[in-house]
Amino acid sequence: MSQKEKAQTFRELHKKKELLILPNAWDVPSARIFENTGFPAVATSSAGMMVSLGYQDGETISKEEFLSALNRIARVLSIPLSADIVGGFGETPEEVGRFAGQVIQAGAVGVNIEDFSHATKKLHPVELQLQKIKAIRNQADLLDIPIVINARTDALRFAEGEDKMQEAISRAKAYRDEGRADCVYPMGLVDHDSISRFVRELDFFPVNVMVRKGLPSIPELQKLGVKRISFGPTASYAAMGLLKRISNDLLEKQDFQGLVEGAISIDELNSLAIPRS
Amino acid sequence: MSQKEKAQTFRELHKKKELLILPNAWDVPSARIFENTGFPAVATSSAGMMVSLGYQDGETISKEEFLSALNRIARVLSIPLSADIVGGFGETPEEVGRFAGQVIQAGAVGVNIEDFSHATKKLHPVELQLQKIKAIRNQADLLDIPIVINARTDALRFAEGEDKMQEAISRAKAYRDEGRADCVYPMGLVDHDSISRFVRELDFFPVNVMVRKGLPSIPELQKLGVKRISFGPTASYAAMGLLKRISNDLLEKQDFQGLVEGAISIDELNSLAIPRS
Repeated sequence: MSQKEKAQTFRELHKKKELLILPNAWDVPSARIFENTGFPAVATSSAGMMVSLGYQDGETISKEEFLSALNRIARVLSIPLSADIVGGFGETPEEVGRFAGQVIQAGAVGVNIEDFSHATKKLHPVELQLQKIKAIRNQADLLDIPIVINARTDALRFAEGEDKMQEAISRAKAYRDEGRADCVYPMGLVDHDSISRFVRELDFFPVNVMVRKGLPSIPELQKLGVKRISFGPTASYAAMGLLKRISNDLLEKQDFQGLVEGAISIDELNSLAIPRS
Repeated sequence: MSQKEKAQTFRELHKKKELLILPNAWDVPSARIFENTGFPAVATSSAGMMVSLGYQDGETISKEEFLSALNRIARVLSIPLSADIVGGFGETPEEVGRFAGQVIQAGAVGVNIEDFSHATKKLHPVELQLQKIKAIRNQADLLDIPIVINARTDALRFAEGEDKMQEAISRAKAYRDEGRADCVYPMGLVDHDSISRFVRELDFFPVNVMVRKGLPSIPELQKLGVKRISFGPTASYAAMGLLKRISNDLLEKQDFQGLVEGAISIDELNSLAIPRS
Protein backbone atom coordinates (compact mmCIF):
# COMPACT_ATOMS: atom_id res chain seq x y z
CA MET A 1 0.00 0.00 0.00
CA SER A 2 1.25 3.48 -0.83
CA GLN A 3 0.96 6.13 1.85
CA LYS A 4 -2.01 7.62 0.01
CA GLU A 5 -3.75 4.25 -0.03
CA LYS A 6 -3.04 3.83 3.65
CA ALA A 7 -4.65 7.21 4.31
CA GLN A 8 -7.71 6.25 2.25
CA THR A 9 -7.94 2.90 4.05
CA PHE A 10 -7.72 4.67 7.40
CA ARG A 11 -10.48 7.12 6.36
CA GLU A 12 -12.75 4.24 5.39
CA LEU A 13 -12.28 2.62 8.81
CA HIS A 14 -14.15 5.60 10.28
CA LYS A 15 -17.16 5.05 8.05
CA LYS A 16 -17.97 1.45 8.83
CA LYS A 17 -20.88 0.17 10.84
CA GLU A 18 -18.49 -1.40 13.39
CA LEU A 19 -16.58 1.03 15.52
CA LEU A 20 -12.82 1.20 14.95
CA ILE A 21 -10.71 -0.19 17.80
CA LEU A 22 -7.46 1.77 17.51
CA PRO A 23 -4.52 0.58 19.64
CA ASN A 24 -1.90 3.13 20.67
CA ALA A 25 1.70 1.92 20.64
CA TRP A 26 4.78 3.48 22.21
CA ASP A 27 7.59 1.89 20.19
CA VAL A 28 8.35 -0.45 17.30
CA PRO A 29 7.52 -3.86 18.83
CA SER A 30 4.33 -2.68 20.55
CA ALA A 31 3.11 -1.34 17.19
CA ARG A 32 4.07 -4.55 15.39
CA ILE A 33 2.32 -6.73 18.00
CA PHE A 34 -0.88 -4.76 17.35
CA GLU A 35 -0.44 -5.26 13.62
CA ASN A 36 0.27 -8.97 13.99
CA THR A 37 -2.73 -9.62 16.20
CA GLY A 38 -5.06 -8.18 13.59
CA PHE A 39 -5.84 -4.52 14.26
CA PRO A 40 -6.47 -2.69 10.96
CA ALA A 41 -4.50 0.43 12.00
CA VAL A 42 -2.21 1.63 14.80
CA ALA A 43 -1.79 5.01 16.48
CA THR A 44 0.96 6.37 18.69
CA SER A 45 0.33 7.39 22.28
CA SER A 46 2.03 10.68 23.03
CA ALA A 47 2.54 9.88 26.72
CA GLY A 48 3.63 6.32 25.96
CA MET A 49 6.11 7.34 23.28
CA MET A 50 7.49 10.38 25.11
CA VAL A 51 8.05 8.57 28.39
CA SER A 52 9.69 5.62 26.66
CA LEU A 53 12.23 8.18 25.33
CA GLY A 54 12.69 9.93 28.67
CA TYR A 55 10.31 12.88 28.33
CA GLN A 56 7.12 13.66 30.18
CA ASP A 57 3.95 13.89 28.09
CA GLY A 58 3.69 17.19 26.25
CA GLU A 59 6.09 18.94 23.90
CA THR A 60 9.38 18.83 25.82
CA ILE A 61 10.84 16.35 23.31
CA SER A 62 12.53 17.95 20.28
CA LYS A 63 10.72 17.81 16.96
CA GLU A 64 13.63 15.86 15.49
CA GLU A 65 13.53 13.16 18.16
CA PHE A 66 9.73 12.93 17.89
CA LEU A 67 9.87 12.55 14.12
CA SER A 68 12.65 9.93 14.34
CA ALA A 69 10.64 7.85 16.80
CA LEU A 70 7.54 8.15 14.62
CA ASN A 71 9.45 7.17 11.50
CA ARG A 72 10.96 4.13 13.20
CA ILE A 73 7.42 2.85 13.78
CA ALA A 74 6.07 3.88 10.38
CA ARG A 75 8.78 2.12 8.44
CA VAL A 76 8.04 -1.32 9.91
CA LEU A 77 4.23 -1.12 9.69
CA SER A 78 2.26 -2.30 6.69
CA ILE A 79 -1.02 -0.85 8.01
CA PRO A 80 -2.03 2.81 8.55
CA LEU A 81 -0.30 4.73 11.38
CA SER A 82 -1.81 7.76 13.09
CA ALA A 83 0.36 10.13 15.13
CA ASP A 84 -0.57 11.90 18.34
CA ILE A 85 1.11 15.26 17.75
CA VAL A 86 0.03 16.78 21.09
CA GLY A 87 -0.69 20.48 20.35
CA GLY A 88 1.17 20.45 17.03
CA PHE A 89 4.60 21.57 18.30
CA GLY A 90 4.05 25.20 17.41
CA GLU A 91 2.44 28.41 18.63
CA THR A 92 1.21 29.56 15.26
CA PRO A 93 -0.89 27.83 12.57
CA GLU A 94 2.10 28.13 10.21
CA GLU A 95 4.38 26.28 12.61
CA VAL A 96 1.78 23.59 13.26
CA GLY A 97 1.14 23.14 9.54
CA ARG A 98 4.84 22.81 8.82
CA PHE A 99 5.24 20.24 11.57
CA ALA A 100 2.21 18.27 10.31
CA GLY A 101 3.90 18.11 6.92
CA GLN A 102 6.98 16.58 8.54
CA VAL A 103 4.78 14.14 10.44
CA ILE A 104 3.20 13.01 7.18
CA GLN A 105 6.62 12.72 5.57
CA ALA A 106 7.67 10.55 8.52
CA GLY A 107 4.91 8.15 7.50
CA ALA A 108 1.74 9.07 9.40
CA VAL A 109 -1.68 9.05 7.71
CA GLY A 110 -3.57 10.50 10.64
CA VAL A 111 -3.00 12.99 13.45
CA ASN A 112 -4.50 13.83 16.83
CA ILE A 113 -4.29 17.49 17.78
CA GLU A 114 -5.16 18.92 21.19
CA ASP A 115 -6.66 22.35 21.96
CA PHE A 116 -5.00 23.15 25.27
CA SER A 117 -1.62 24.12 26.68
CA HIS A 118 0.14 21.50 28.80
CA ALA A 119 1.94 24.32 30.60
CA THR A 120 -1.02 26.50 31.58
CA LYS A 121 -3.87 23.94 31.37
CA LYS A 122 -5.88 26.55 29.48
CA LEU A 123 -7.76 26.00 26.26
CA HIS A 124 -6.48 27.80 23.18
CA PRO A 125 -8.97 30.29 21.66
CA VAL A 126 -11.23 28.32 19.35
CA GLU A 127 -10.38 30.55 16.38
CA LEU A 128 -6.64 29.87 16.79
CA GLN A 129 -7.29 26.14 17.09
CA LEU A 130 -9.36 26.20 13.91
CA GLN A 131 -6.49 27.92 12.09
CA LYS A 132 -4.13 25.19 13.26
CA ILE A 133 -6.45 22.41 12.11
CA LYS A 134 -6.89 24.12 8.76
CA ALA A 135 -3.11 24.48 8.42
CA ILE A 136 -2.75 20.73 8.94
CA ARG A 137 -5.38 20.02 6.30
CA ASN A 138 -3.69 22.38 3.87
CA GLN A 139 -0.35 20.64 4.32
CA ALA A 140 -1.97 17.24 3.80
CA ASP A 141 -3.62 18.53 0.62
CA LEU A 142 -0.28 19.88 -0.61
CA LEU A 143 1.30 16.48 -0.03
CA ASP A 144 -1.75 14.76 -1.54
CA ILE A 145 -2.18 12.47 1.47
CA PRO A 146 -5.82 12.48 2.66
CA ILE A 147 -4.99 12.12 6.35
CA VAL A 148 -7.55 11.63 9.11
CA ILE A 149 -7.55 14.58 11.49
CA ASN A 150 -8.80 13.66 14.94
CA ALA A 151 -9.51 16.97 16.70
CA ARG A 152 -9.28 16.56 20.42
CA THR A 153 -10.88 18.99 22.82
CA ASP A 154 -10.07 19.20 26.50
CA ALA A 155 -13.04 21.46 27.21
CA LEU A 156 -14.54 18.88 29.59
CA ARG A 157 -11.43 19.30 31.73
CA PHE A 158 -10.33 22.89 31.23
CA ALA A 159 -13.20 25.04 29.90
CA GLU A 160 -13.87 28.20 31.87
CA GLY A 161 -17.47 28.73 32.88
CA GLU A 162 -19.96 26.25 34.25
CA ASP A 163 -21.18 24.35 31.21
CA LYS A 164 -18.07 22.45 30.15
CA MET A 165 -20.14 19.96 28.19
CA GLN A 166 -21.68 22.71 26.09
CA GLU A 167 -18.23 24.17 25.38
CA ALA A 168 -16.94 20.70 24.34
CA ILE A 169 -19.89 20.22 21.98
CA SER A 170 -19.53 23.69 20.55
CA ARG A 171 -15.80 23.22 19.93
CA ALA A 172 -16.30 19.77 18.41
CA LYS A 173 -18.89 21.18 15.99
CA ALA A 174 -16.53 23.97 14.99
CA TYR A 175 -13.64 21.55 14.43
CA ARG A 176 -15.95 19.38 12.33
CA ASP A 177 -17.61 22.13 10.27
CA GLU A 178 -14.99 24.85 9.94
CA GLY A 179 -11.83 22.84 10.57
CA ARG A 180 -12.71 19.90 8.30
CA ALA A 181 -11.68 17.45 11.02
CA ASP A 182 -12.66 13.83 10.34
CA CYS A 183 -13.22 12.77 13.91
CA VAL A 184 -13.59 14.59 17.23
CA TYR A 185 -12.22 13.46 20.54
CA PRO A 186 -13.65 14.92 23.74
CA MET A 187 -11.11 13.95 26.41
CA GLY A 188 -12.84 12.90 29.62
CA LEU A 189 -16.08 11.70 28.03
CA VAL A 190 -16.73 8.52 29.98
CA ASP A 191 -20.27 7.89 31.18
CA HIS A 192 -23.04 6.40 29.09
CA ASP A 193 -25.40 9.36 29.14
CA SER A 194 -22.76 11.97 28.35
CA ILE A 195 -21.46 9.90 25.45
CA SER A 196 -24.99 9.43 24.15
CA ARG A 197 -25.70 13.15 24.31
CA PHE A 198 -22.41 14.11 22.70
CA VAL A 199 -22.77 11.70 19.78
CA ARG A 200 -26.34 12.84 19.12
CA GLU A 201 -25.42 16.54 19.34
CA LEU A 202 -22.69 15.86 16.76
CA ASP A 203 -25.27 14.13 14.51
CA PHE A 204 -23.39 10.83 14.69
CA PHE A 205 -20.25 12.36 13.20
CA PRO A 206 -17.24 10.15 14.17
CA VAL A 207 -16.46 10.55 17.87
CA ASN A 208 -13.37 9.01 19.50
CA VAL A 209 -13.43 7.86 23.11
CA MET A 210 -10.51 6.53 25.13
CA VAL A 211 -10.35 3.26 27.04
CA ARG A 212 -10.64 3.83 30.78
CA LYS A 213 -12.30 2.47 33.87
CA GLY A 214 -16.01 3.21 33.88
CA LEU A 215 -16.32 3.47 30.10
CA PRO A 216 -19.28 1.49 28.70
CA SER A 217 -18.42 -1.82 27.01
CA ILE A 218 -17.48 -1.81 23.33
CA PRO A 219 -20.86 -3.27 22.22
CA GLU A 220 -22.61 -0.52 24.22
CA LEU A 221 -20.40 2.16 22.69
CA GLN A 222 -21.28 0.86 19.27
CA LYS A 223 -24.99 1.06 20.09
CA LEU A 224 -24.48 4.67 21.16
CA GLY A 225 -22.98 5.45 17.75
CA VAL A 226 -19.35 5.91 18.82
CA LYS A 227 -17.13 5.36 15.78
CA ARG A 228 -13.70 4.96 17.33
CA ILE A 229 -12.18 3.82 20.61
CA SER A 230 -8.47 4.37 21.20
CA PHE A 231 -6.20 3.00 23.91
CA GLY A 232 -4.50 6.30 24.73
CA PRO A 233 -1.51 5.45 26.94
CA THR A 234 -3.29 2.49 28.59
CA ALA A 235 -1.13 -0.18 26.92
CA SER A 236 1.92 1.50 28.49
CA TYR A 237 0.12 1.60 31.85
CA ALA A 238 -0.67 -2.11 31.55
CA ALA A 239 2.85 -3.11 30.51
CA MET A 240 4.42 -1.11 33.34
CA GLY A 241 1.88 -2.59 35.76
CA LEU A 242 3.00 -6.04 34.66
CA LEU A 243 6.66 -5.12 35.26
CA LYS A 244 5.77 -3.97 38.76
CA ARG A 245 4.07 -7.26 39.58
CA ILE A 246 6.96 -9.26 38.12
CA SER A 247 9.44 -7.14 40.10
CA ASN A 248 7.56 -7.56 43.34
CA ASP A 249 7.36 -11.33 42.84
CA LEU A 250 11.10 -11.44 42.30
CA LEU A 251 12.04 -9.20 45.18
CA GLU A 252 9.55 -10.52 47.73
CA LYS A 253 9.24 -14.20 46.74
CA GLN A 254 12.37 -14.77 44.60
CA ASP A 255 9.97 -16.04 41.96
CA PHE A 256 10.71 -15.38 38.27
CA GLN A 257 7.75 -17.24 36.76
CA GLY A 258 6.12 -13.96 35.69
CA LEU A 259 8.98 -13.47 33.23
CA VAL A 260 8.55 -16.82 31.49
CA GLU A 261 4.81 -17.46 31.58
CA GLY A 262 2.81 -16.09 28.64
CA ALA A 263 5.96 -14.62 27.11
CA ILE A 264 6.91 -14.48 23.46
CA SER A 265 10.16 -16.02 22.12
CA ILE A 266 13.42 -14.38 21.06
CA ASP A 267 12.62 -15.17 17.42
CA GLU A 268 9.22 -13.53 17.73
CA LEU A 269 10.73 -10.47 19.42
CA ASN A 270 13.35 -10.12 16.68
CA SER A 271 10.69 -10.48 14.00
CA LEU A 272 8.95 -7.38 15.38
CA ALA A 273 11.88 -5.17 14.34
CA ILE A 274 11.23 -5.71 10.64
CA PRO A 275 8.16 -5.36 8.41
CA ARG A 276 5.70 -8.22 8.45
CA SER A 277 6.53 -10.76 5.78
CA MET B 1 26.26 9.03 43.77
CA SER B 2 29.02 9.88 41.32
CA GLN B 3 29.58 7.52 38.41
CA LYS B 4 32.66 6.14 40.17
CA GLU B 5 30.65 5.46 43.31
CA LYS B 6 27.98 3.75 41.22
CA ALA B 7 30.66 1.51 39.72
CA GLN B 8 32.01 0.65 43.15
CA THR B 9 28.50 -0.05 44.44
CA PHE B 10 27.85 -2.30 41.45
CA ARG B 11 31.12 -4.18 42.08
CA GLU B 12 30.16 -4.78 45.71
CA LEU B 13 26.82 -6.26 44.66
CA HIS B 14 28.78 -9.15 43.10
CA LYS B 15 30.55 -9.95 46.36
CA LYS B 16 27.59 -10.39 48.67
CA LYS B 17 26.33 -13.63 50.11
CA GLU B 18 22.96 -13.12 48.37
CA LEU B 19 22.99 -13.44 44.62
CA LEU B 20 22.34 -10.28 42.63
CA ILE B 21 19.01 -10.22 40.79
CA LEU B 22 19.70 -7.93 37.84
CA PRO B 23 16.70 -6.80 35.76
CA ASN B 24 17.27 -5.93 32.10
CA ALA B 25 15.31 -2.96 30.78
CA TRP B 26 14.67 -1.89 27.20
CA ASP B 27 13.82 1.80 27.63
CA VAL B 28 13.47 4.61 30.16
CA PRO B 29 10.23 3.62 31.96
CA SER B 30 11.08 -0.08 32.17
CA ALA B 31 14.40 0.86 33.81
CA ARG B 32 12.72 3.29 36.20
CA ILE B 33 10.07 0.72 37.21
CA PHE B 34 12.90 -1.65 38.17
CA GLU B 35 14.55 1.11 40.17
CA ASN B 36 11.29 2.09 41.89
CA THR B 37 10.40 -1.45 42.88
CA GLY B 38 13.72 -1.85 44.69
CA PHE B 39 16.33 -3.53 42.52
CA PRO B 40 19.81 -2.26 43.46
CA ALA B 41 21.00 -1.98 39.84
CA VAL B 42 19.62 -2.21 36.30
CA ALA B 43 21.09 -3.56 33.06
CA THR B 44 20.03 -3.11 29.46
CA SER B 45 18.93 -6.01 27.31
CA SER B 46 20.48 -5.78 23.88
CA ALA B 47 17.59 -7.57 22.14
CA GLY B 48 15.00 -5.61 24.14
CA MET B 49 16.59 -2.23 23.46
CA MET B 50 17.44 -2.90 19.81
CA VAL B 51 13.99 -4.20 18.89
CA SER B 52 12.27 -1.33 20.68
CA LEU B 53 14.23 0.97 18.31
CA GLY B 54 13.47 -1.09 15.21
CA TYR B 55 16.63 -3.21 14.90
CA GLN B 56 17.10 -6.93 15.31
CA ASP B 57 19.43 -8.06 18.10
CA GLY B 58 23.09 -7.71 17.15
CA GLU B 59 25.05 -4.74 15.90
CA THR B 60 22.87 -3.43 13.06
CA ILE B 61 22.02 -0.30 15.07
CA SER B 62 24.49 2.59 14.69
CA LYS B 63 26.84 3.34 17.56
CA GLU B 64 25.33 6.81 17.85
CA GLU B 65 21.77 5.54 18.21
CA PHE B 66 22.88 2.88 20.68
CA LEU B 67 24.73 5.41 22.82
CA SER B 68 21.78 7.84 22.74
CA ALA B 69 19.39 5.15 23.91
CA LEU B 70 21.79 4.12 26.67
CA ASN B 71 22.28 7.70 27.80
CA ARG B 72 18.54 8.34 27.94
CA ILE B 73 18.27 5.52 30.48
CA ALA B 74 21.44 6.43 32.40
CA ARG B 75 20.42 10.03 32.95
CA VAL B 76 17.17 9.16 34.74
CA LEU B 77 18.58 6.36 36.95
CA SER B 78 20.00 6.95 40.40
CA ILE B 79 21.31 3.38 40.69
CA PRO B 80 24.06 1.63 38.71
CA LEU B 81 23.38 0.82 35.05
CA SER B 82 25.15 -1.95 33.13
CA ALA B 83 25.12 -2.01 29.32
CA ASP B 84 24.90 -5.04 27.08
CA ILE B 85 27.30 -4.00 24.31
CA VAL B 86 26.84 -7.19 22.24
CA GLY B 87 30.29 -7.92 20.72
CA GLY B 88 31.64 -4.44 21.42
CA PHE B 89 30.74 -2.83 18.06
CA GLY B 90 34.18 -3.34 16.60
CA GLU B 91 36.39 -5.90 14.87
CA THR B 92 39.58 -4.92 16.64
CA PRO B 93 40.44 -4.52 20.34
CA GLU B 94 41.14 -0.83 19.66
CA GLU B 95 37.65 -0.26 18.23
CA VAL B 96 36.02 -2.16 21.08
CA GLY B 97 38.04 -0.25 23.67
CA ARG B 98 37.09 3.08 22.12
CA PHE B 99 33.42 2.11 22.05
CA ALA B 100 33.55 0.97 25.68
CA GLY B 101 34.89 4.40 26.58
CA GLN B 102 31.87 5.99 24.91
CA VAL B 103 29.57 3.57 26.71
CA ILE B 104 31.08 4.62 30.04
CA GLN B 105 30.76 8.27 29.08
CA ALA B 106 27.09 7.61 28.28
CA GLY B 107 26.68 6.59 31.92
CA ALA B 108 27.22 2.83 32.18
CA VAL B 109 29.20 1.30 35.05
CA GLY B 110 29.17 -2.24 33.72
CA VAL B 111 29.27 -4.02 30.37
CA ASN B 112 28.40 -7.43 28.94
CA ILE B 113 30.57 -8.51 26.05
CA GLU B 114 29.95 -11.57 23.87
CA ASP B 115 32.56 -13.80 22.21
CA PHE B 116 30.77 -14.78 19.00
CA SER B 117 29.69 -13.25 15.70
CA HIS B 118 25.93 -12.79 15.20
CA ALA B 119 26.51 -13.05 11.45
CA THR B 120 28.50 -16.30 11.32
CA LYS B 121 27.51 -17.88 14.65
CA LYS B 122 31.19 -18.69 15.21
CA LEU B 123 33.19 -18.00 18.33
CA HIS B 124 35.95 -15.42 18.08
CA PRO B 125 39.46 -16.80 18.77
CA VAL B 126 39.98 -16.71 22.52
CA GLU B 127 43.14 -14.60 22.18
CA LEU B 128 41.27 -11.90 20.21
CA GLN B 129 38.44 -11.90 22.75
CA LEU B 130 40.94 -11.49 25.59
CA GLN B 131 42.45 -8.49 23.81
CA LYS B 132 39.00 -6.93 23.51
CA ILE B 133 38.23 -7.48 27.20
CA LYS B 134 41.61 -6.00 28.13
CA ALA B 135 40.95 -3.01 25.90
CA ILE B 136 37.69 -2.39 27.74
CA ARG B 137 39.46 -2.59 31.10
CA ASN B 138 42.15 -0.20 29.92
CA GLN B 139 39.56 2.35 28.83
CA ALA B 140 37.77 2.05 32.17
CA ASP B 141 41.08 2.56 33.98
CA LEU B 142 41.82 5.62 31.86
CA LEU B 143 38.42 7.08 32.76
CA ASP B 144 38.90 6.02 36.38
CA ILE B 145 35.55 4.21 36.49
CA PRO B 146 35.95 0.71 37.96
CA ILE B 147 33.30 -0.90 35.79
CA VAL B 148 32.08 -4.48 36.14
CA ILE B 149 32.97 -6.53 33.05
CA ASN B 150 30.63 -9.46 32.54
CA ALA B 151 32.34 -11.69 29.96
CA ARG B 152 29.81 -13.79 28.14
CA THR B 153 30.75 -16.93 26.30
CA ASP B 154 28.55 -18.67 23.78
CA ALA B 155 30.75 -21.77 23.72
CA LEU B 156 27.87 -23.95 24.95
CA ARG B 157 26.03 -23.00 21.76
CA PHE B 158 28.72 -22.50 19.17
CA ALA B 159 31.97 -24.21 20.19
CA GLU B 160 33.44 -26.53 17.58
CA GLY B 161 34.32 -29.99 18.81
CA GLU B 162 32.39 -32.29 21.08
CA ASP B 163 33.05 -30.96 24.56
CA LYS B 164 31.30 -27.61 24.47
CA MET B 165 31.15 -27.50 28.28
CA GLN B 166 34.92 -27.84 28.55
CA GLU B 167 35.40 -25.04 26.02
CA ALA B 168 33.00 -22.80 27.96
CA ILE B 169 34.86 -23.47 31.21
CA SER B 170 38.21 -22.91 29.59
CA ARG B 171 37.10 -19.60 28.05
CA ALA B 172 35.51 -18.42 31.26
CA LYS B 173 38.74 -19.11 33.16
CA ALA B 174 40.75 -17.19 30.58
CA TYR B 175 38.37 -14.23 30.70
CA ARG B 176 38.62 -14.27 34.49
CA ASP B 177 42.39 -14.73 34.81
CA GLU B 178 43.89 -13.02 31.79
CA GLY B 179 41.03 -10.66 30.85
CA ARG B 180 40.39 -9.38 34.39
CA ALA B 181 36.66 -9.86 33.91
CA ASP B 182 34.56 -9.52 37.07
CA CYS B 183 31.86 -12.00 36.20
CA VAL B 184 31.44 -14.69 33.55
CA TYR B 185 28.27 -15.52 31.71
CA PRO B 186 27.94 -18.88 29.97
CA MET B 187 24.91 -18.45 27.71
CA GLY B 188 22.77 -21.59 27.68
CA LEU B 189 23.76 -22.84 31.15
CA VAL B 190 20.39 -23.97 32.49
CA ASP B 191 20.27 -27.30 34.30
CA HIS B 192 21.17 -27.81 37.94
CA ASP B 193 24.10 -30.18 37.43
CA SER B 194 25.75 -28.13 34.69
CA ILE B 195 25.46 -24.95 36.74
CA SER B 196 26.90 -26.73 39.76
CA ARG B 197 29.85 -28.05 37.78
CA PHE B 198 30.52 -24.70 36.11
CA VAL B 199 30.50 -22.72 39.34
CA ARG B 200 32.83 -25.21 41.06
CA GLU B 201 35.21 -25.31 38.10
CA LEU B 202 35.38 -21.51 38.28
CA ASP B 203 36.14 -21.75 42.05
CA PHE B 204 32.97 -19.84 42.91
CA PHE B 205 34.05 -16.78 40.92
CA PRO B 206 30.93 -14.73 40.03
CA VAL B 207 28.84 -16.54 37.40
CA ASN B 208 25.83 -14.95 35.71
CA VAL B 209 22.87 -17.05 34.58
CA MET B 210 19.84 -15.86 32.65
CA VAL B 211 16.19 -16.35 33.59
CA ARG B 212 14.56 -19.00 31.45
CA LYS B 213 12.23 -21.96 31.63
CA GLY B 214 13.89 -24.92 33.33
CA LEU B 215 16.35 -22.82 35.33
CA PRO B 216 16.54 -23.84 39.02
CA SER B 217 14.76 -21.53 41.47
CA ILE B 218 16.61 -18.52 42.83
CA PRO B 219 17.13 -20.11 46.29
CA GLU B 220 18.59 -23.19 44.55
CA LEU B 221 20.86 -21.04 42.39
CA GLN B 222 22.11 -19.32 45.50
CA LYS B 223 22.89 -22.69 47.11
CA LEU B 224 24.85 -23.62 44.00
CA GLY B 225 26.98 -20.50 44.43
CA VAL B 226 25.63 -18.49 41.48
CA LYS B 227 26.31 -14.80 42.11
CA ARG B 228 24.08 -13.09 39.56
CA ILE B 229 20.87 -13.83 37.68
CA SER B 230 19.85 -11.48 34.87
CA PHE B 231 16.57 -11.20 32.98
CA GLY B 232 18.10 -11.00 29.52
CA PRO B 233 15.30 -9.97 27.16
CA THR B 234 12.62 -11.83 29.17
CA ALA B 235 10.92 -8.66 30.45
CA SER B 236 10.38 -7.63 26.82
CA TYR B 237 9.06 -11.11 26.03
CA ALA B 238 6.63 -10.86 28.95
CA ALA B 239 5.43 -7.35 28.10
CA MET B 240 4.86 -8.28 24.44
CA GLY B 241 3.08 -11.47 25.57
CA LEU B 242 0.75 -9.30 27.65
CA LEU B 243 0.03 -7.05 24.65
CA LYS B 244 -0.87 -10.13 22.60
CA ARG B 245 -3.34 -11.34 25.23
CA ILE B 246 -4.86 -7.87 25.56
CA SER B 247 -5.13 -7.59 21.78
CA ASN B 248 -6.78 -10.99 21.42
CA ASP B 249 -9.30 -10.15 24.16
CA LEU B 250 -10.15 -6.94 22.35
CA LEU B 251 -10.42 -8.43 18.89
CA GLU B 252 -12.15 -11.66 19.83
CA LYS B 253 -14.28 -10.63 22.83
CA GLN B 254 -14.41 -6.81 22.49
CA ASP B 255 -13.12 -6.77 26.07
CA PHE B 256 -10.69 -4.01 27.15
CA GLN B 257 -10.36 -4.99 30.82
CA GLY B 258 -6.77 -6.14 30.26
CA LEU B 259 -5.82 -2.52 29.60
CA VAL B 260 -7.22 -1.16 32.84
CA GLU B 261 -6.65 -3.97 35.37
CA GLY B 262 -3.33 -3.88 37.21
CA ALA B 263 -2.26 -0.81 35.27
CA ILE B 264 -0.32 2.19 36.54
CA SER B 265 -1.67 5.76 36.32
CA ILE B 266 -0.78 8.62 33.97
CA ASP B 267 0.98 10.43 36.82
CA GLU B 268 3.04 7.35 37.61
CA LEU B 269 3.93 6.89 33.93
CA ASN B 270 5.01 10.52 33.63
CA SER B 271 7.07 10.24 36.81
CA LEU B 272 9.15 7.51 35.14
CA ALA B 273 10.54 10.00 32.61
CA ILE B 274 12.48 11.92 35.26
CA PRO B 275 14.93 10.91 37.99
CA ARG B 276 13.47 9.52 41.17
CA SER B 277 12.83 12.28 43.66
